[in-house]
Amino acid sequence: MDMRHISGTELRKRIRRREHTGPTSGLALGFVQANLVVLPQSLAFDFLLFCQRNPKPCPIIDVTEPGSPVPTQCAPDADLRTDVPRYRLFRDGEMVDEPADLKALWQLDAVAFLLGCSFTFEDALLRAGLPVRHIDAGCNVPMYRTNIACKSAGVFAGPMVVSMRPMTSAQAIRAVQVCSRFPRAHGSPVHIGDPGAIGIRDIDRPDFGDPVEVRPGEMPVFWACGVTPQAVVMQVRPAWCITHKPGHMFVTDWRDTDLEGE
Amino acid sequence: MDMRHISGTELRKRIRRREHTGPTSGLALGFVQANLVVLPQSLAFDFLLFCQRNPKPCPIIDVTEPGSPVPTQCAPDADLRTDVPRYRLFRDGEMVDEPADLKALWQLDAVAFLLGCSFTFEDALLRAGLPVRHIDAGCNVPMYRTNIACKSAGVFAGPMVVSMRPMTSAQAIRAVQVCSRFPRAHGSPVHIGDPGAIGIRDIDRPDFGDPVEVRPGEMPVFWACGVTPQAVVMQVRPAWCITHKPGHMFVTDWRDTDLEGE
Repeated sequence: MDMRHISGTELRKRIRRREHTGPTSGLALGFVQANLVVLPQSLAFDFLLFCQRNPKPCPIIDVTEPGSPVPTQCAPDADLRTDVPRYRLFRDGEMVDEPADLKALWQLDAVAFLLGCSFTFEDALLRAGLPVRHIDAGCNVPMYRTNIACKSAGVFAGPMVVSMRPMTSAQAIRAVQVCSRFPRAHGSPVHIGDPGAIGIRDIDRPDFGDPVEVRPGEMPVFWACGVTPQAVVMQVRPAWCITHKPGHMFVTDWRDTDLEGE
Repeated sequence: MDMRHISGTELRKRIRRREHTGPTSGLALGFVQANLVVLPQSLAFDFLLFCQRNPKPCPIIDVTEPGSPVPTQCAPDADLRTDVPRYRLFRDGEMVDEPADLKALWQLDAVAFLLGCSFTFEDALLRAGLPVRHIDAGCNVPMYRTNIACKSAGVFAGPMVVSMRPMTSAQAIRAVQVCSRFPRAHGSPVHIGDPGAIGIRDIDRPDFGDPVEVRPGEMPVFWACGVTPQAVVMQVRPAWCITHKPGHMFVTDWRDTDLEGE
């Protein structure tokens, strides 16, 4: 059964029935996928404010009402306790489990945040004929901690994590245009060129993901990355926190084009 | 002393010293002005989520940390207890006072929201050679309650309030382009043409502000209005709430161009 061309709601049904338990990259093409962060209500205002102040690494797709597992804006028939292929449970900032669902773990004070993900703008880059090196290479995108400080909010603070895709100068200019159309999927790049200028010491040794080749005539192009909010949350060591397992995203009812800014 | 061409911080100094106590329209030209809503912390998450879900009527400029009167993002040297020319105090949803400052009223659990205002896009309309009828007529902009429901969040719900400026078809098209550049100042219009389609019965009898002439060949163009969040908050009848007095805005350090979207 080809899951590339089914709708977001169809894919979620299969995930809910455990017929699909793997990564979601390339599935339900054209539908927006999102990062998941679930936190206790006591941290929700600070985290919402953190996301509002840092829209490039933390573009808000949807936020649930305290206790409700339903993302009313982007997928009103979904249940965040069952509709993600694989979760991660953190206690005091340490990962303790990778549960298949949250039926036993969901808390009455849980607030779920769905944040935009790079799949949306990578699709747009590919459609524009621009290279996405890690997809061609069949590996993970390289990600780096930078010296760019996020704007803090309450207890949340920390450096921005970025992802990198090598491009020629002309491709980088076109990529700025293409990605600026998607402010809710990390938007335009945050840096082009010298990795040292944003505190990256060795482009061949990413902090997360896999290294990719930067060819002669290319320069590294850096985007704000959805790993940023996770890193910032873990530093606070909340009593509990739940995220998706990397690559195992929540798939919404929104089309990529719904994310285009004004 | 000409206050049209001083900076936001200069104008705030004069307001703080009570050298200026009137409306702020046309002052510190080019600097972003903002609506003020101050609420108890217990309502802050719901209201922040309401604003996030309804960015056209409630475009977030800045939100303070609980208890702090300093808008760190848009005017880090400002004090929201003294830097607005005139305030309004509401208790249980009823206006009870128009204080000159908040020195005695500020609460330890106060959270201040600064929301984008129409001055930014009206300046842009004028610079584009487009008519802003109520400015020409020297009256207030006409505002109407509509049947467009805002997206609710927690305790906050209610209809969108819109402002109206008459334009020809060609002017309306240009206005969509010009205002789309400012998603944090209400952005593009929400409706063009038939007032009945959004629940407005009589265009000559606005719910707030003054009526303006719609000339032959013109149609009414409607924008989401900053009165919306105030109306929604008052319906909840919070124990206390503070706003600016209409027209007596908070002036930020941001330039209008800083509000342009990606």
